[in-house]
Amino acid sequence: MTSTAGQVIQCRAAVAWEAGKPLVIEEVEVAPPKEKEVRLKILYTSLCHTDLYFWEAKGQTPLFPRIFGHEAGGIVESVGEGVTDLAPGDHVLPVFTGECKECAHCKHEESNLCDLLRINTERGVMISDGRSRFSMNGKPIYHFLGTSTFSEYTVIHSGCVAKINPSAPLDKVCVLSCGISTGLGAALNVAKPPRGSTVAIFGLGAVGLAAAEGARIAGASRVIGVDRNPAKFDEAKKFGITEFVNPMDYDKPVQEVIAEMTGGGVDRSIECTGNINAMISAFECVHDGWGVAVLVGVPHKEAVFKTHPINFLNERTLKGTFFGNYKPRSHLPSVVEKYMNKELEVEKFITHTVPFSEINKAFDYMLKGDGLRCIIRMDG
Amino acid sequence: MTSTAGQVIQCRAAVAWEAGKPLVIEEVEVAPPKEKEVRLKILYTSLCHTDLYFWEAKGQTPLFPRIFGHEAGGIVESVGEGVTDLAPGDHVLPVFTGECKECAHCKHEESNLCDLLRINTERGVMISDGRSRFSMNGKPIYHFLGTSTFSEYTVIHSGCVAKINPSAPLDKVCVLSCGISTGLGAALNVAKPPRGSTVAIFGLGAVGLAAAEGARIAGASRVIGVDRNPAKFDEAKKFGITEFVNPMDYDKPVQEVIAEMTGGGVDRSIECTGNINAMISAFECVHDGWGVAVLVGVPHKEAVFKTHPINFLNERTLKGTFFGNYKPRSHLPSVVEKYMNKELEVEKFITHTVPFSEINKAFDYMLKGDGLRCIIRMDG
Repeated sequence: MTSTAGQVIQCRAAVAWEAGKPLVIEEVEVAPPKEKEVRLKILYTSLCHTDLYFWEAKGQTPLFPRIFGHEAGGIVESVGEGVTDLAPGDHVLPVFTGECKECAHCKHEESNLCDLLRINTERGVMISDGRSRFSMNGKPIYHFLGTSTFSEYTVIHSGCVAKINPSAPLDKVCVLSCGISTGLGAALNVAKPPRGSTVAIFGLGAVGLAAAEGARIAGASRVIGVDRNPAKFDEAKKFGITEFVNPMDYDKPVQEVIAEMTGGGVDRSIECTGNINAMISAFECVHDGWGVAVLVGVPHKEAVFKTHPINFLNERTLKGTFFGNYKPRSHLPSVVEKYMNKELEVEKFITHTVPFSEINKAFDYMLKGDGLRCIIRMDG
Repeated sequence: MTSTAGQVIQCRAAVAWEAGKPLVIEEVEVAPPKEKEVRLKILYTSLCHTDLYFWEAKGQTPLFPRIFGHEAGGIVESVGEGVTDLAPGDHVLPVFTGECKECAHCKHEESNLCDLLRINTERGVMISDGRSRFSMNGKPIYHFLGTSTFSEYTVIHSGCVAKINPSAPLDKVCVLSCGISTGLGAALNVAKPPRGSTVAIFGLGAVGLAAAEGARIAGASRVIGVDRNPAKFDEAKKFGITEFVNPMDYDKPVQEVIAEMTGGGVDRSIECTGNINAMISAFECVHDGWGVAVLVGVPHKEAVFKTHPINFLNERTLKGTFFGNYKPRSHLPSVVEKYMNKELEVEKFITHTVPFSEINKAFDYMLKGDGLRCIIRMDG
């Protein structure tokens, strides 16, 4: 145990005091981890759309003050009672969803929707006691996604922490704790494009490009990128996208355009926008007889997926995935290994780096649609 | 070649002269098979709902006079030019869909939607020359589904004929040429319930019970039958159905009832009614994380499948199947073998037998919902 174990730690955190207002770097107090919890020293974190979405808090019940952040890499500072598989000094990725290893989902080979630690965007406290581990002048500050990585130290349920190869550079692999793994897993674990197959990717943000990266790794020979923003096409070529379709360029549904380009439809499609019409197009553009469409993007609460059922009866398959079907603790270490053995190229997702003191710049980049991932160095 | 080869054959056929009117046994002329066609002597045929549906011709463009019938067993009488894999005397099952073995679908491991010979309910003539092989007094009588098995002799494209084990009793295995294989394959080839799993079957007609039979063979431990007609429940027990749910008995959607019975949902569901609400229930009643729903029943032309996309994102899969994903020529012989080695029990599907001269009784049984399959003996 380190000298800080069992003590309250004072450190810097970027606090969101109000919806949509710039974060403020504050001195906060981080309580020690309780049973089955760990306290991490965060070294690098990055900004993901989910942070932005809950920071904007449009149409939501706002929960402020809050510490956002969920894509990150860090080192275990201390562990609470009952934590046996993590120890101070371990290199880890915190994850916004968890793996208790005891529920029906964790015991099922195919599911990663842990009953205990499944993503909960509304909870701002720890599960064990319903309280926050963050405070300022004795007043609690809420957690976000159980991770709150926009802080030099944070407390996380041990089931939401993946122990990784200590030689992996945390400033790179930190992006694997959310979006990149989500897209990659959607391709490798769910769509599983056969070698030589044709894949359509809807939405060329970080998740969609990670799906393209997965299609490339799986050996797909044609990867068609679909996006309404042609400015994304040039960058997307680096990710193995071989052709582009801008739905705005056509008078007919994009699924018909794709069917014509491919002699009846693609072998696999992966939807990464969350737009309901894109979901329907992604399903209807796969080939009858064998096509598989995978939904990744998170839909609006009131969205309704509609299609003629004959599209299913003609032997199309529609699946959804959450976090690329990766079980965080069991599988993330192997994703890091894919980077280490140069199968997966992570660097090309990292387009900006800022010191922690300038974290609001990361929000500005994302709001402008500038780049893919901005790494935030906690020592800066 | 038999002595009738190359000759027009005069024989009995049950002709449908008008929509919904009793069939009339007539003497018809059956022309010899042309290139890639075969002429079969039908020994046994049975009645399937698809015959009834197109005989009633409600809301359709009627095509009469027509010879219905597509579930059957027979013997090759003669073959046309270019037919190399069938010979006179071969025992065969004619099939309403085909396998050319040359198109993209036939060459794809997973599809049975042959481009050339895929089911076509509107065509009443042979593909090669757009003409019928049946006539009466020189006037053509239309084919149905390329099979027209309600005739002592019929001409069929050789790609729609499965050669089977000659020791298989044709009066039993004839039912494997459509409905039973459709349900069985939906379970064994598409839903693939793991050993010990829980399966829901929507619709307890012959197809649904064949799906239950498939679930039993696969080793499912709970098979929940869903039907609005409780009279079907007793019979269904013979097919391995262990529990029943009548949606009419509840004030809430049946998917909620099933979720409560099963701790969150079934592992697999198979929809065999074609009713759009049953399709939605069948999808929504599978467990998140790993559930797979399979659509078998043919929907109404204007039906729209609607669900909240989050049901997919929570890792549910929805697939459709056609003819249980069996490639007719490649796979039906192995289904017959499942019967021969006593894995598959076919007898329990056969609830009536009538001589050909009383074929209209088979329609009466089906219209009354009496029994599952009625075998029509062509020698009677």
